[in-house]
Amino acid sequence: MNFRIEKDTMGEVKVPADKLWGAQTERSRNNFKIGAPASMPLEIIYGFAYLKKAAAYTNCELGALPIEKRDLIAKVCDEILEGKHDNEFPLVIWQTGSGTQSNMNVNEVIANRAQQLAGKEIGKDEAVIKANDDVNKSQSSNDTFPTGMTIAAYKKIVETTLPGVKQLRDTLKSKSEAFKNVIKIGRTHLMDATPLTLGQELSGYVSQLDHGMKALENTLAHLSELALGGTAVGTGLNAPKGYSKRVAEYIAKFTELPFVTAPNKFEALAAHDALVETHGALKQLAVSLNKIANDIRMMASGPRSGIGEIIIPANEPGSSIMPGKVNPTQCEALTMVCAQVIGNDVAISFGGAQGHYELNVFKPVMAANVIQSAQLIGDACVSFDENCAIGIEPNHAVIKQLLNNSLMLVTALNTKIGYYKAAEIANTAHKNGTTLKEEAINLGYVTAEDYDEWVKPEDMVGSLK
Amino acid sequence: MNFRIEKDTMGEVKVPADKLWGAQTERSRNNFKIGAPASMPLEIIYGFAYLKKAAAYTNCELGALPIEKRDLIAKVCDEILEGKHDNEFPLVIWQTGSGTQSNMNVNEVIANRAQQLAGKEIGKDEAVIKANDDVNKSQSSNDTFPTGMTIAAYKKIVETTLPGVKQLRDTLKSKSEAFKNVIKIGRTHLMDATPLTLGQELSGYVSQLDHGMKALENTLAHLSELALGGTAVGTGLNAPKGYSKRVAEYIAKFTELPFVTAPNKFEALAAHDALVETHGALKQLAVSLNKIANDIRMMASGPRSGIGEIIIPANEPGSSIMPGKVNPTQCEALTMVCAQVIGNDVAISFGGAQGHYELNVFKPVMAANVIQSAQLIGDACVSFDENCAIGIEPNHAVIKQLLNNSLMLVTALNTKIGYYKAAEIANTAHKNGTTLKEEAINLGYVTAEDYDEWVKPEDMVGSLK
Amino acid sequence: MNFRIEKDTMGEVKVPADKLWGAQTERSRNNFKIGAPASMPLEIIYGFAYLKKAAAYTNCELGALPIEKRDLIAKVCDEILEGKHDNEFPLVIWQTGSGTQSNMNVNEVIANRAQQLAGKEIGKDEAVIKANDDVNKSQSSNDTFPTGMTIAAYKKIVETTLPGVKQLRDTLKSKSEAFKNVIKIGRTHLMDATPLTLGQELSGYVSQLDHGMKALENTLAHLSELALGGTAVGTGLNAPKGYSKRVAEYIAKFTELPFVTAPNKFEALAAHDALVETHGALKQLAVSLNKIANDIRMMASGPRSGIGEIIIPANEPGSSIMPGKVNPTQCEALTMVCAQVIGNDVAISFGGAQGHYELNVFKPVMAANVIQSAQLIGDACVSFDENCAIGIEPNHAVIKQLLNNSLMLVTALNTKIGYYKAAEIANTAHKNGTTLKEEAINLGYVTAEDYDEWVKPEDMVGSLK
Amino acid sequence: MNFRIEKDTMGEVKVPADKLWGAQTERSRNNFKIGAPASMPLEIIYGFAYLKKAAAYTNCELGALPIEKRDLIAKVCDEILEGKHDNEFPLVIWQTGSGTQSNMNVNEVIANRAQQLAGKEIGKDEAVIKANDDVNKSQSSNDTFPTGMTIAAYKKIVETTLPGVKQLRDTLKSKSEAFKNVIKIGRTHLMDATPLTLGQELSGYVSQLDHGMKALENTLAHLSELALGGTAVGTGLNAPKGYSKRVAEYIAKFTELPFVTAPNKFEALAAHDALVETHGALKQLAVSLNKIANDIRMMASGPRSGIGEIIIPANEPGSSIMPGKVNPTQCEALTMVCAQVIGNDVAISFGGAQGHYELNVFKPVMAANVIQSAQLIGDACVSFDENCAIGIEPNHAVIKQLLNNSLMLVTALNTKIGYYKAAEIANTAHKNGTTLKEEAINLGYVTAEDYDEWVKPEDMVGSLK
Repeated sequence: MNFRIEKDTMGEVKVPADKLWGAQTERSRNNFKIGAPASMPLEIIYGFAYLKKAAAYTNCELGALPIEKRDLIAKVCDEILEGKHDNEFPLVIWQTGSGTQSNMNVNEVIANRAQQLAGKEIGKDEAVIKANDDVNKSQSSNDTFPTGMTIAAYKKIVETTLPGVKQLRDTLKSKSEAFKNVIKIGRTHLMDATPLTLGQELSGYVSQLDHGMKALENTLAHLSELALGGTAVGTGLNAPKGYSKRVAEYIAKFTELPFVTAPNKFEALAAHDALVETHGALKQLAVSLNKIANDIRMMASGPRSGIGEIIIPANEPGSSIMPGKVNPTQCEALTMVCAQVIGNDVAISFGGAQGHYELNVFKPVMAANVIQSAQLIGDACVSFDENCAIGIEPNHAVIKQLLNNSLMLVTALNTKIGYYKAAEIANTAHKNGTTLKEEAINLGYVTAEDYDEWVKPEDMVGSLK
Repeated sequence: MNFRIEKDTMGEVKVPADKLWGAQTERSRNNFKIGAPASMPLEIIYGFAYLKKAAAYTNCELGALPIEKRDLIAKVCDEILEGKHDNEFPLVIWQTGSGTQSNMNVNEVIANRAQQLAGKEIGKDEAVIKANDDVNKSQSSNDTFPTGMTIAAYKKIVETTLPGVKQLRDTLKSKSEAFKNVIKIGRTHLMDATPLTLGQELSGYVSQLDHGMKALENTLAHLSELALGGTAVGTGLNAPKGYSKRVAEYIAKFTELPFVTAPNKFEALAAHDALVETHGALKQLAVSLNKIANDIRMMASGPRSGIGEIIIPANEPGSSIMPGKVNPTQCEALTMVCAQVIGNDVAISFGGAQGHYELNVFKPVMAANVIQSAQLIGDACVSFDENCAIGIEPNHAVIKQLLNNSLMLVTALNTKIGYYKAAEIANTAHKNGTTLKEEAINLGYVTAEDYDEWVKPEDMVGSLK
Repeated sequence: MNFRIEKDTMGEVKVPADKLWGAQTERSRNNFKIGAPASMPLEIIYGFAYLKKAAAYTNCELGALPIEKRDLIAKVCDEILEGKHDNEFPLVIWQTGSGTQSNMNVNEVIANRAQQLAGKEIGKDEAVIKANDDVNKSQSSNDTFPTGMTIAAYKKIVETTLPGVKQLRDTLKSKSEAFKNVIKIGRTHLMDATPLTLGQELSGYVSQLDHGMKALENTLAHLSELALGGTAVGTGLNAPKGYSKRVAEYIAKFTELPFVTAPNKFEALAAHDALVETHGALKQLAVSLNKIANDIRMMASGPRSGIGEIIIPANEPGSSIMPGKVNPTQCEALTMVCAQVIGNDVAISFGGAQGHYELNVFKPVMAANVIQSAQLIGDACVSFDENCAIGIEPNHAVIKQLLNNSLMLVTALNTKIGYYKAAEIANTAHKNGTTLKEEAINLGYVTAEDYDEWVKPEDMVGSLK
Repeated sequence: MNFRIEKDTMGEVKVPADKLWGAQTERSRNNFKIGAPASMPLEIIYGFAYLKKAAAYTNCELGALPIEKRDLIAKVCDEILEGKHDNEFPLVIWQTGSGTQSNMNVNEVIANRAQQLAGKEIGKDEAVIKANDDVNKSQSSNDTFPTGMTIAAYKKIVETTLPGVKQLRDTLKSKSEAFKNVIKIGRTHLMDATPLTLGQELSGYVSQLDHGMKALENTLAHLSELALGGTAVGTGLNAPKGYSKRVAEYIAKFTELPFVTAPNKFEALAAHDALVETHGALKQLAVSLNKIANDIRMMASGPRSGIGEIIIPANEPGSSIMPGKVNPTQCEALTMVCAQVIGNDVAISFGGAQGHYELNVFKPVMAANVIQSAQLIGDACVSFDENCAIGIEPNHAVIKQLLNNSLMLVTALNTKIGYYKAAEIANTAHKNGTTLKEEAINLGYVTAEDYDEWVKPEDMVGSLK
């Protein structure tokens, strides 16, 4: 492999000749061979691209950077955001806990790529743009990394998680309306209970997801606060006056998202409770989705020896010899995602709780987990929606049979023949394995006509809302 | 021991003669000998007392209960709320997951105590108030237990957690202002960094707690939704028209808290995401408090061989032979509480994710954990505040020494003599173990007068906000 | 209330006159009003009683304590172990993280009770036994508390957890054998699959619990290591030569458990990985038990509209109007316990990971969680066993019907008529809602006689092991 | 892109022409667009390669597969293990919870690659090897996936985790010996305490890791049990007699690891407590490593305003302006790994607890988390060892200064001049900010000569072991 020599304050480093990164990136590559390479989420790199561009614009506006440099930096940032340099960010999550090395990776790539754009040779000609002095101007790793990770997390939430959950929620809502008159047996403690409609059952899921999305949205105000401008310890040392407010405005403009500068920069560097808060809501959604997916697979179980009240789409061969074996694979993928998200929540809490003094040094692991959870929940909801929820249909025959066979309908007779006779009917039917109607007539308490008129499940499900 | 005979639909049970509970409570006592007795939180019992009274009023208003019965029931509920019957609730958390048995425990105690109030003999005279027919009228365990636990959790949050956190937050805020000019060395990665003020440092904690209280308050809307009126499966079977809205109004009136009837009763029985959501915020507070307590004990460490920048109150003998050994015991209690809350969060997620169909049957464990966490955080904040935070004082001598001894102040010379000479000064001082000033003069780059004028930590801490 | 004056190095404290504790206990009571009073588990106090007695014997043997003092101390320790002084330990878990105050609580109670036993007056006559100088001789809180908590945890595991799990395991084993010929439909993905026997199904649970008990026993070696003798920082300063080995032998003798002195005292004070390890195994048991209880309640669901393959005991009235509604309340209690244990595991990991230097100061919270989990699992297994597992019976009619109705049995025809014809039979039966046999004959591929001979579920379940 | 047509029982699917996978893989690719592509760990694919080869050998030996087919299958498996087909496994973790689709992915790739090796054209010529009939013979996804994941996990533990931890442990051990006479101040509650040696301190870490490795090794017996031979539900339907034992022997032979066939196949499919058990030990190691890394970074903190007792290698520029700012980046990477592992543990418990009936369908997420944790701990230990631990050196000057300045040394005077005079010396020194020696002489209690003879830290650290 060909190499070129890059330098930093510790001396020279050999870097692959065809790569744009510099000495500090290469040092990190060598010093942190932990897990798969390039595990640092690209979303965070893109978050950096937004902020480096915003910083260049702000520095320029405040007289700290010439317009030519601003434009070169911005051009490279745009290229990064177009995905042109995805292979230039080889670092891992498991590096320094401030993310310093990923900040330097971005600085170095921007500087070297700017050199190319300016028609100069990297490592030979004098640097047109300097990684530290220009790209990183008015910044510190300590305020850029939290800013980059916040942009990444916020974007993921609003672009992937919320739309994904919303899509599933809307399908469940329309199913809930479509099935609002499908009366079925209720189940509590997994045991037969009084009836409700399938639509009512699904409406509970819709309500869960509505609450979950609301909870997630509630966290966005905290998450919108950017650390940038705090520099090394939160005091803003070396940043020009007015910088932090202005740079947040530029980030808001470039991302089209309502970012603001954090009112308190000391918190913004030393604690990442906003990530904890946001992931708390993601975990709540995981809890809800696990319940929903579990219910759906139980209701779809069978086809002969399970519950079988609903039919879900058959997307893959279940078994080559057993027709009708439609495995609830989307439920399984979704509940596995829920398991991961519930685990990630603990990783984030653990990291969040251990900041020291002016800097929390669990930034990469916290950010990576939030981004993963946000992606997985959004994706899994869409997958579950399109490959399962959209196709849910009631198995009317089974639903009717289980409903009519139920002993719980006896409740309807209480007001007609009294509690004790009703109980006697139910008891006898249970013992004999017969139906309520048979025993009601048998015992001489009710005529067939009266039974049919009095025992109407549709009168037991409330306003059918 | 003396016994009397109580009956339920399964037959007769012997109950201690001096106890007010009945057959179903006694069965539960015998069938669930798991852990310490009476572990079901009294707060939930009190929540039941509010709702039983509210149900009696609503039933009466809707023509389903005579006013005499209403008043008897309400009188017992008031007695329970006054703590007069705390020993009548012997059941454990680890019972049926719907909390049915605690619902029956309350029903039985109310009915039997009403019998006494009416001047009748329990188990002999005919029951004036019937546990099922009167006390439990228009209710089911499935909607009463979630209502009772919600009342308990909400009250605990607003009466204990939020005031406790607020008290600590206010102390930290006033300390932050008091120490706004105390300049000290900053630390990132646990390593010396540029200076900030002690007030700034504390302001980050205040900001964390402000965000945490906001996050907790954000969850209260979901938590204010009451399941009552859903009865067995959410359809409201057997509850009179208008019942659910009215009973929530009565609960709001009696508790003086803004409870409303849950818009969707199916969610309210089958999922307890509101508890998940609320505890997520408690966990966020635990994460914040762990960071704060950790910082404080590190800053107070020593007295000779630690950091020693602050002094905290000496509340207990640290060691009989070592004066000045003030152990940060309040920090330890608080961080242990944080550990518990972070663990409880997982228990709650686990239970919340596993509801089946129309009923989540992890209600008692979820509720008990929320109540414990809410209590512990509130109590621990007050304890930490009154026995530690209130007494935090800067150790000015140490702060000044560590600040002046720091090599980070060299940053201030960058703009005067250039980066390279500044770095040379710092390097030399580091190597020789000397001060920046000594070496700056030694190297001939700066006079003593210039040094004192240029290197001013107070110019490096921003607006001292 | 009456008070007497007690003193410590910080001065005088008023203590309730009828209590045996002293100044430091009272200070802790006042300084740590967090959660319920007296939450420090009595099991740890008893652990202290063993170790204080053992220390007295060792000190005496090594010439550091007169035999009269030894015997007085030992006598009080025995009284404590008989439960005579349970009300003398009012402190909470949420105190100093070294448990110093509970150590002093024990020291003070022993000293004051010894004063009574010696016929002297507490606080008036000169102390016969001194809390620090005699009871705590050759000890430090830093090595006594971990010793006390280790004794408590070990005892709980071997006296409550393992026997409880074993009892349930043995019942499941005997049920597995009893039902070894009860052939039923298998279920994978919750969907119908090829058959197995109910005995085989239960044998999987037995295997899980066998592995779980093995895993728990594997942790006992580490847990048997006692910190005592390390004194303040692990060096054993102020303890006589030979003390640590001898005192462990005495503890082993008094508890009749195989305790040894920890080979490395620095770990024994600074880290509690043994608790982490032991609780990891408890958590594994919780994972297993949750699976088992879940299966059992699903198989018992119904009675009409669920799976209904097994019948479990009816212990409480399920519903006053619905006969046969046997709620799986023991499954619910057990799975709630599992939720708690899985949460406790995180609290313990969190505490275990945060020791600093020579001392982990999350001792009380770690120990309390281990003890709670060990108690709950043991108790819940016994409760589940006696009130549920012991009474599990197959519902043969349902099992047979679900089995014979299954389409999966077609697999048996593959080798007789070829895969494609077999599949056609199954497909047709699925479409028409008929049985395999009907369609097999209908399609003309098999005679009724051949079908009965070829399609035998008992040939599909392997060696019926 | 070019496509070819592949078929399965549901019909035709277009597959990229240059890929070896078939219809079911392609369906899964389309149906599960969740998170990053190809997230299913390659380690599991390799596990499959071992087992497919072993199954071919066993089937051949038992007369169920011609030797030519065996050899073709084995050849492709070897190619897979050489990494030649890494790009042919595009599926994600978030698929069906049984991993069926990854099983089919492997089956399809082996069949199609065998077609190439046989000189035939994929999709045109008749298949030489059939994915289902040949490659998957005597197998089911339900027993292959757990076997594949078990092989992957076991290999990772013994090849990466244990050697990595061992390497770090050995370095700490040699450091512990090297520094066995470096006496330093001890710290409990973060406060100054009696002295110990740096070697003693490090010996505690060694002991933790020894215990952790032991705990991990203890789990390997359970983990070595293979599900293969259980087929669909554990009964072994369709597998030849003797198959399960023999196939495990082949796997043991090919992997050179002590795998055995699971004594109970019902557990082996329906529960993955072995993964829970093994990860429990990984989590324990994470707890230990977090403590160790935390201590090291605190001891290395400074250089001027921290503890500064040890010096760790400078691997990256800490800051361009601050010499001596050596950030403890390896500690940060390691503790972030610990956070992830502690979170992963919860994901695994959550998945492990939720198996249903004959199949746990959280297999991929459980396996992926175990493999990730095992890799991260192994890698991070090596990285921490080579880039940090190996270079730890005492800062003798600081250690000596902090030690001699300590007030705790006064303990040594207790036996010479009595406790009260000693305390007075310490108190006075604390108040005046002076040294013990100064005040001891000042107060006239000790001569300088006596002081130097009596107050010797080296006499306070025990046997210096």
